[in-house]
Amino acid sequence: MPKISEKGTKMPSSPIRKLVPYATQAEKEGKTVYYLNIGQPDIKTPQVALDAVKVHSLDILAYTRSEGSEDYRKKIAAYYAKNDINVTHDDIIVTTGGSEALLFAFGSIMDKDDEIIIPEPFYANYNGFSIASGVNVVPVISKIEDNFALPPIEEFEKLITSKTKAILICNPGNPTGYLYSKEEIRQLADLVVKHDLFLIADEVYREFVYDGISHYSILQEEKLKEHAIIIDSVSKRYSMCGARIGYLVSKNKEFIQTALKYAQARLSPPTLAQIASEAALNTPDSYFKEVIEEYVDRRDTLITELEKIEGVKVAKPNGAFYCIAELPVKNSDKFAQWLLESFNFENETVMVAPAAGFYSSPDVGLNQIRIAYVLKEESLKKAVNIIAEALKVYKD
Amino acid sequence: MPKISEKGTKMPSSPIRKLVPYATQAEKEGKTVYYLNIGQPDIKTPQVALDAVKVHSLDILAYTRSEGSEDYRKKIAAYYAKNDINVTHDDIIVTTGGSEALLFAFGSIMDKDDEIIIPEPFYANYNGFSIASGVNVVPVISKIEDNFALPPIEEFEKLITSKTKAILICNPGNPTGYLYSKEEIRQLADLVVKHDLFLIADEVYREFVYDGISHYSILQEEKLKEHAIIIDSVSKRYSMCGARIGYLVSKNKEFIQTALKYAQARLSPPTLAQIASEAALNTPDSYFKEVIEEYVDRRDTLITELEKIEGVKVAKPNGAFYCIAELPVKNSDKFAQWLLESFNFENETVMVAPAAGFYSSPDVGLNQIRIAYVLKEESLKKAVNIIAEALKVYKD
Ligand SMILES: Cc1ncc(COP(=O)(O)O)c(C=O)c1O
Ligand SMILES: Cc1ncc(COP(=O)(O)O)c(C=O)c1O
Repeated sequence: MPKISEKGTKMPSSPIRKLVPYATQAEKEGKTVYYLNIGQPDIKTPQVALDAVKVHSLDILAYTRSEGSEDYRKKIAAYYAKNDINVTHDDIIVTTGGSEALLFAFGSIMDKDDEIIIPEPFYANYNGFSIASGVNVVPVISKIEDNFALPPIEEFEKLITSKTKAILICNPGNPTGYLYSKEEIRQLADLVVKHDLFLIADEVYREFVYDGISHYSILQEEKLKEHAIIIDSVSKRYSMCGARIGYLVSKNKEFIQTALKYAQARLSPPTLAQIASEAALNTPDSYFKEVIEEYVDRRDTLITELEKIEGVKVAKPNGAFYCIAELPVKNSDKFAQWLLESFNFENETVMVAPAAGFYSSPDVGLNQIRIAYVLKEESLKKAVNIIAEALKVYKD
Repeated sequence: MPKISEKGTKMPSSPIRKLVPYATQAEKEGKTVYYLNIGQPDIKTPQVALDAVKVHSLDILAYTRSEGSEDYRKKIAAYYAKNDINVTHDDIIVTTGGSEALLFAFGSIMDKDDEIIIPEPFYANYNGFSIASGVNVVPVISKIEDNFALPPIEEFEKLITSKTKAILICNPGNPTGYLYSKEEIRQLADLVVKHDLFLIADEVYREFVYDGISHYSILQEEKLKEHAIIIDSVSKRYSMCGARIGYLVSKNKEFIQTALKYAQARLSPPTLAQIASEAALNTPDSYFKEVIEEYVDRRDTLITELEKIEGVKVAKPNGAFYCIAELPVKNSDKFAQWLLESFNFENETVMVAPAAGFYSSPDVGLNQIRIAYVLKEESLKKAVNIIAEALKVYKD
């Protein structure tokens, strides 16, 4: 039998997917499961986007330009202008989700065995994209005690070698919810300019910032002109994850030309999804206002309820819709499985994401979980109460 | 300024895209341009597929399962059963176009510097996917004199090294239109089993076979069970290239599990496109009958007209909608540019694809072009006549 590749063997399985069969089984046994583990919002997609595809007048569902239509990219550039990011349509490539933008970015700037420094905990699929691209993730630990703020810049500098090609941040962060300050971005900017590295910022949660703080994009830093690569996506912004539309944004022409060759090889991003996503740019501001209010309420409820539980430590997020909680357990992987397999409170239980999968360093974050607040407040309250009840009886 | 990757530098630009500015310029000057270079059919997408998205009842455009929904995959399995290919939904992963299926296949079975043997001329983007995956294409030349039939199997065997992981064929072929016989598939089967290699067949043109010959899939060969990987796509079958839906099909469980990890890392194939593609499976047989008749008529016209031109040699395709023609010119790249830049016949000209981009060996196919018969017969006739007139005056 022919063998699969070494890199294929190394590709990680999702840390959450392992738990899916246990959740399925729990539901079969009649338990209600609250899913705190997923990144799929329950928020409605803007009606303008849903309607746009209903009234399409296509005869032939044809390829679009590999970089996305000029019209659509011009509208995206206008969206960025509104957000104080000064780019033209030529600085933008439309991709099949933020996922593909990450893959194109990695392929365009790194060769096998090159290194990319990422503060951890980080979005688990950065591991997958790194392995697929044959590059190595070099993690810098950020701490729950610091609310997952940027680790001291010296920690980054210590790790830079001749193989280092980029630093990747997620802002605001999945799974931390941490929003980097202007000051933190500037520190990173100085560092990448000094060492001539790329700075990639995954800004797919850019709109989800709370408490009156505003988002500071790496492309607002003038000195990053040749260094900055933004990863963006309509998935979370308009609750249209299934569209599979994202963007690569950079003012580095050589980078954009290279990424375009990757885009041309795969021909075109999805056409129907581009119709929906272009329409989504007309979403009224009131939509975002409501969504943000909803997330703030949920976050506040979640944090308040979690803080009531003895032995639980929680970082207060200013952005995205995740938070990391430290539990009084040794191994949250086992705890998460036990919750589904062996526990119920009034015939209900929860599914959480063990945080170890978001760390690249071994044996870090073993007692942490990630909670996504993508459920209504009532459900969030019940779910946290289940965790509280579970911790009363759980022994590891 | 930070540097892009070596592999990014090596990524090929599309051989056709270089000519696009010349075509644009020609149109600006008021010339009519017949595009014989593209793989985007002018055939209408089946109405059932176009309508399915118009009546969608989604509130949230959510991610689907990474491998595609079970329902959809079951219907795909039924489609294969109808085509004498015996697979279950577990043997299928829905991908973002055949393009992504190729990328997942390459990543799942090959590491950096591994080798894949491909008969040339071949679909130019195999080069891009190989470079993106860090692997090397080892070409075997197939000849216009043989109608681009499978080169002698010894030619393949000679090239097998410890680095060889797979043989890739395109059946029927882009750019050759050649349809491999059962006998040829069996020769390849024996070879890959003997050397324990994968055999990847890009069967995206499977439905486009003419003259009463039927398509023989690698998955119809019992002995290839663990070796066969099919690349498939709705792009050409239903003239819905913009959907971006393809499939990976294999009975090798380890391969499917590995490819699934790649699929999970990028989360989900496009949701709206899956709705359209699932509906497309209900396309009435009459649609295909008409389409096939149309392509046969076009092919016959094209070949007849080309054969009338002195010094032109042409391979007669039994499948797909491309053919390769050898012209009495030294360099078809220059000829193609000249056609757009400096020639017109009654204020009309043509754009063709120089065939050199479909060869990986240097200096092969320099006098060949690929013609896609994706235009109506009337236009094809005019276009070939333009080539005839051009050859009368062209000097290289
Ligand atoms: C931080 C982050 N980046 C990128 C993505 C990829 O999203 P998509 O490919 O749907 O745009 C996600 C999805 O959850 C994410 O959380
Ligand atoms: C031989 C072949 N394989 C694969 C593809 C990729 O098509 P898609 O990604 O649209 O399915 C094409 C497109 O032209 C092709 O000609």
